[in-house]
Amino acid sequence: MNFCPNCGAALQRRIPEGDTLPRDVCVACGSVHYQNPRVVVGCVPEWEGRILLCRRAIEPRRGYWTAPAGYLEIGESLHSAAARETTEEAMADVEVGSMLSIVNVLYAEQLHVLFRAQMRSAVHGAGAESLETRLYDEAKIPWDDIAFTSMHYALERYFEDRRQGRQGLHFHDLTHRPRH
Amino acid sequence: MNFCPNCGAALQRRIPEGDTLPRDVCVACGSVHYQNPRVVVGCVPEWEGRILLCRRAIEPRRGYWTAPAGYLEIGESLHSAAARETTEEAMADVEVGSMLSIVNVLYAEQLHVLFRAQMRSAVHGAGAESLETRLYDEAKIPWDDIAFTSMHYALERYFEDRRQGRQGLHFHDLTHRPRH
Repeated sequence: MNFCPNCGAALQRRIPEGDTLPRDVCVACGSVHYQNPRVVVGCVPEWEGRILLCRRAIEPRRGYWTAPAGYLEIGESLHSAAARETTEEAMADVEVGSMLSIVNVLYAEQLHVLFRAQMRSAVHGAGAESLETRLYDEAKIPWDDIAFTSMHYALERYFEDRRQGRQGLHFHDLTHRPRH
Repeated sequence: MNFCPNCGAALQRRIPEGDTLPRDVCVACGSVHYQNPRVVVGCVPEWEGRILLCRRAIEPRRGYWTAPAGYLEIGESLHSAAARETTEEAMADVEVGSMLSIVNVLYAEQLHVLFRAQMRSAVHGAGAESLETRLYDEAKIPWDDIAFTSMHYALERYFEDRRQGRQGLHFHDLTHRPRH
């Protein structure tokens, strides 16, 4: 951030009075511009024991598999965002269930939130950001071709829990960007 | 947002190619500036059955009571942010426990996340943003003087669960700003 989004003047990096961290401060109009982690939210849609994955049509990680997920937008709840992303990326209609995982993706300044979900029908298909979608049995999950570490973590916990008949909530921190 | 934080040119509000929502777009440098909800995170610290509340020294809601909470910063996990806020606002050292509630505060473009927590000692006191701190029995909670609706909701769920010997995770949406 170089210029003030409010007045267009050049910004300075300094600790505002009463604060403890350096921020982007505008000495022209007095505004302080905070930056905070963004929330990425999605779900693991299930249909008759299989789960729905999307093969990404866009970067990063084009060609790799993921559960539907994307940025939480202004004005929507976590649940509604997870359902919207599933419609957009996998053309599937889901009922969002229990929370599965929260991964603090520290290097990317993101929080990745995944829910369990039930598909309301077997209908699915590739949205604009997907090359294809597919329902996978646990034994057929393409573990080596999962797009993101946070998603790999969440899917492992999903199946572990399901085998043990429970629905836990799992927390994990990722501090370093993986070298794919 | 009026000016491009990257190059300082005037921004336009338009839907970028491949997107579905209007964004702040810079036609000078080509950057798109997304805005997303911010995460506020805190905890309900418990010590020998009583919970620790802070009376706010700052606006909004100066003079009203809240559990320690604040914005999630870049580079920290939800758990570490909840513990840090408790140190800053209530000078207490906590072990953060299970997740209590997530409230989508849609009108404020925020997500309020609360955990349960155990204090590691009876020590507490007013940090820079608090007028005072106090350990409350359930029967003495100042329900009419709780600062925020999301906090009122979380504290109600906290005691309900505790009376029933469980630790649930509760979701709630707030769509309209309360008239205090």
